[in-house]
Amino acid sequence: MEPIDELRELLGADAVLGRAADMAPFLTDWRGRYTGRALAVVQPRTTGQVAQAVAWCARHGVPVVPQGGNTGLVGGATPDTSARAVLLSTRRLRRIRAVDPANDTITVEAGCPLQEVQQAALAHDRLFPLSLASQGSCTIGGNLATNAGGTQVLRYGNARDLALGLEVVLGDGTVWDGLRGLRKDNTGYDLKQLFIGSEGTLGVITAATLKLFAVPRARVVCLLACDTLAATVALLGRARARAGPALTAFEVMADDCVRLVDAMAAPAGRQRRPLFAQRHPWLVLLEWSEPHEARHAQDQCEQLCAAAIAAGEARDALLSQSLDDAQSLWQVRESIPEAQARRGGNVKHDISLPVGAMAAFTAETGQALHALSTDLQVLVFGHLGDGNLHFNVGTRDGVPIAAAFDREAQINDIVYAAVLRHGGSVSAEHGLGQLRRDLAQRTKAPEEMALMRAIKQAMDPRNLMNPGKLI
Amino acid sequence: MEPIDELRELLGADAVLGRAADMAPFLTDWRGRYTGRALAVVQPRTTGQVAQAVAWCARHGVPVVPQGGNTGLVGGATPDTSARAVLLSTRRLRRIRAVDPANDTITVEAGCPLQEVQQAALAHDRLFPLSLASQGSCTIGGNLATNAGGTQVLRYGNARDLALGLEVVLGDGTVWDGLRGLRKDNTGYDLKQLFIGSEGTLGVITAATLKLFAVPRARVVCLLACDTLAATVALLGRARARAGPALTAFEVMADDCVRLVDAMAAPAGRQRRPLFAQRHPWLVLLEWSEPHEARHAQDQCEQLCAAAIAAGEARDALLSQSLDDAQSLWQVRESIPEAQARRGGNVKHDISLPVGAMAAFTAETGQALHALSTDLQVLVFGHLGDGNLHFNVGTRDGVPIAAAFDREAQINDIVYAAVLRHGGSVSAEHGLGQLRRDLAQRTKAPEEMALMRAIKQAMDPRNLMNPGKLI
Repeated sequence: MEPIDELRELLGADAVLGRAADMAPFLTDWRGRYTGRALAVVQPRTTGQVAQAVAWCARHGVPVVPQGGNTGLVGGATPDTSARAVLLSTRRLRRIRAVDPANDTITVEAGCPLQEVQQAALAHDRLFPLSLASQGSCTIGGNLATNAGGTQVLRYGNARDLALGLEVVLGDGTVWDGLRGLRKDNTGYDLKQLFIGSEGTLGVITAATLKLFAVPRARVVCLLACDTLAATVALLGRARARAGPALTAFEVMADDCVRLVDAMAAPAGRQRRPLFAQRHPWLVLLEWSEPHEARHAQDQCEQLCAAAIAAGEARDALLSQSLDDAQSLWQVRESIPEAQARRGGNVKHDISLPVGAMAAFTAETGQALHALSTDLQVLVFGHLGDGNLHFNVGTRDGVPIAAAFDREAQINDIVYAAVLRHGGSVSAEHGLGQLRRDLAQRTKAPEEMALMRAIKQAMDPRNLMNPGKLI
Repeated sequence: MEPIDELRELLGADAVLGRAADMAPFLTDWRGRYTGRALAVVQPRTTGQVAQAVAWCARHGVPVVPQGGNTGLVGGATPDTSARAVLLSTRRLRRIRAVDPANDTITVEAGCPLQEVQQAALAHDRLFPLSLASQGSCTIGGNLATNAGGTQVLRYGNARDLALGLEVVLGDGTVWDGLRGLRKDNTGYDLKQLFIGSEGTLGVITAATLKLFAVPRARVVCLLACDTLAATVALLGRARARAGPALTAFEVMADDCVRLVDAMAAPAGRQRRPLFAQRHPWLVLLEWSEPHEARHAQDQCEQLCAAAIAAGEARDALLSQSLDDAQSLWQVRESIPEAQARRGGNVKHDISLPVGAMAAFTAETGQALHALSTDLQVLVFGHLGDGNLHFNVGTRDGVPIAAAFDREAQINDIVYAAVLRHGGSVSAEHGLGQLRRDLAQRTKAPEEMALMRAIKQAMDPRNLMNPGKLI
């Protein structure tokens, strides 16, 4: 019997894909940077079936590559080209198992799209705050396996901070049922932390119990115009002190990013309201959320904007007067990735830094890149409130984008050396996958790599769980 | 040369205690339940000295028992009676290494008393929110090693949630420098999570980088009188929906606990303001905090109380009108442990449950204990907002407390069986130490124990780090 027939017998014929055409959608990553091959693609419907599939792989020494919505940015869910691995898709594990409004928790299966988790929470008048551009297709299991970030981290934390319990299939096919809905549980090592952010290299997350929150019914979005990145940092300090946890987002956008968005909108004939009468080097998008008092939130935001302008931190400010308004202000920020893609892409970096180092880092790195080539253009935007910048390097107007890609290695060297000098991280929210695995190994201390290898060795001694990723 | 002389040569004579009288204060735990013996007590002043001491222990096969302020409740920092171990006190590692207001972080050494961390943050107009009864003497290293909870968990999380980076001396004396001040860093396994809450069984935490927050300048405390525990749970749901993150504490107290506090106050001749004109079965202490608007917080609290009374969840409510008022309302809650101690102590349980299971658990368990003996009295109080009850069992008025202690094993069986039936935890915030180690092993699934042992084996194969604790 062919190995794939054994799998079919275990899981049912419809759960095992073996033909190239059927497998293809699972074997190329979302950005199209990696294409792998697989022995088979399996689509179990239950945790028990995941355990059977993984146990079968363990018996036969077959690597397992777990995949959720296949929306990752670093090739973490794409197998290598050896065709030895089984790709295990969690997409059919998509039940909402329970919502517990008294406990403010929800228990969901790994393959649930993020948006369905959000909707199930809303149906019980609760917020599940994780929010990403890909939320329609990414899965909660993938979000947890990569410790996803997104736009609400400032207030609610990363995916890690939202998980209370996990169910995981370990490398030998054992099921660990750690599905607890407890805010406090000090009875030994916090095992769920091992699996969150480990990109499937220690086990397959099959379900999770997650925290829910009160829905913030009042939401005001302000756009503030600033002269310098240092001014946006000062403004962040002011906003945190004034708003406390009401500050749910604090995003920055360099004017060059906003121009790209404008350029994208214009030829399509879409009417764009000019944001400010004149251009400003930096825009800040600030979101103030409260449980229900719209008037209070509006007043507070107006006072914050006035104080920031009086202090010279901001030049001008726009406040949303309605939820539609708020959405259209967010639209500018959310259009940046697409606008950059239409311009031909760029050399991307997803970095984090101590907030106080942001301005110096950006100035130094900008100068070094300018010295490398005056054709380069730095496109900075991102989650300043989390210390997280998307520091992308393209080319100035009229210069083909190849002028950036041709220098990718040199650009990366400049950017990452500065990140490490300032105590930052070379991957803030996208993870390592295949794309940044070697970078992490090069830049981490040997003690840290040794600790990571000891964990991997203890939990997956034969290196069958998502081999070649992260470590 | 005696082993202890070798240690003196390495660390300096003043850093090594060998005489019984000098060692005694380190060798009995705070509750007086455990007394151990040690080869020596070492008090290093630097991370380098900790590394030297631990490396020396590794070379000689000597166990290491780390200790902070020696305020733990489960004997986690007390050695066994073999006199083989070195007790490593972190108390001299007490520098505040850095405060970074722009990044809202502070970096401190493990032996810093919690209160000094709070004060260093306040000196920069920031809040470090971890808050415990023992904050004058417990150390931040101990807080992290035990994942301490306390009174502000509802809003700010446990100690785990407040740590961004750690510096740890591993079992072989290697120093892992994971002192990062980053909110986002997805570059591999989140190693700090292993050490937090592991009670010194995987390494010695020597320093930490911690999150700071805006100081909440407006703080209103309400005391609400409720008829049933179920009513307090309904009130919690209402408060969460209305206040969102402004809800910084939600504590419950059974009237029997309040009576003990009253009894303690009366003979000392202290004047106590009667809280309510009549007694109520349950009191809720609710704290509403905002960055600075006292008037808004007061108004919101008044509306919340009025709504809870209208809905029949609460019978009566008292609101603080000043910070002094707020403190005196907290005083009732904070006096409960002392009042229970003066009554002769009781059989203590530090449990957590899904919030929705609280009322059923308490009713069922109360009945089972009453069936065991009508002399028993259940004394319930704690952090309802976190799902965490201190479910203590004493005796009713006039019955010697021995009537409870004599039935300790049966009481524990009843309580813990009910906790597990309702999906709870047998140690919410105090950890396992020696006191609850076997309980955890008995009640956890074998897969979970196997995972914990695999981690322990990978990181401390010779079982020299705090042996006999937690695992």
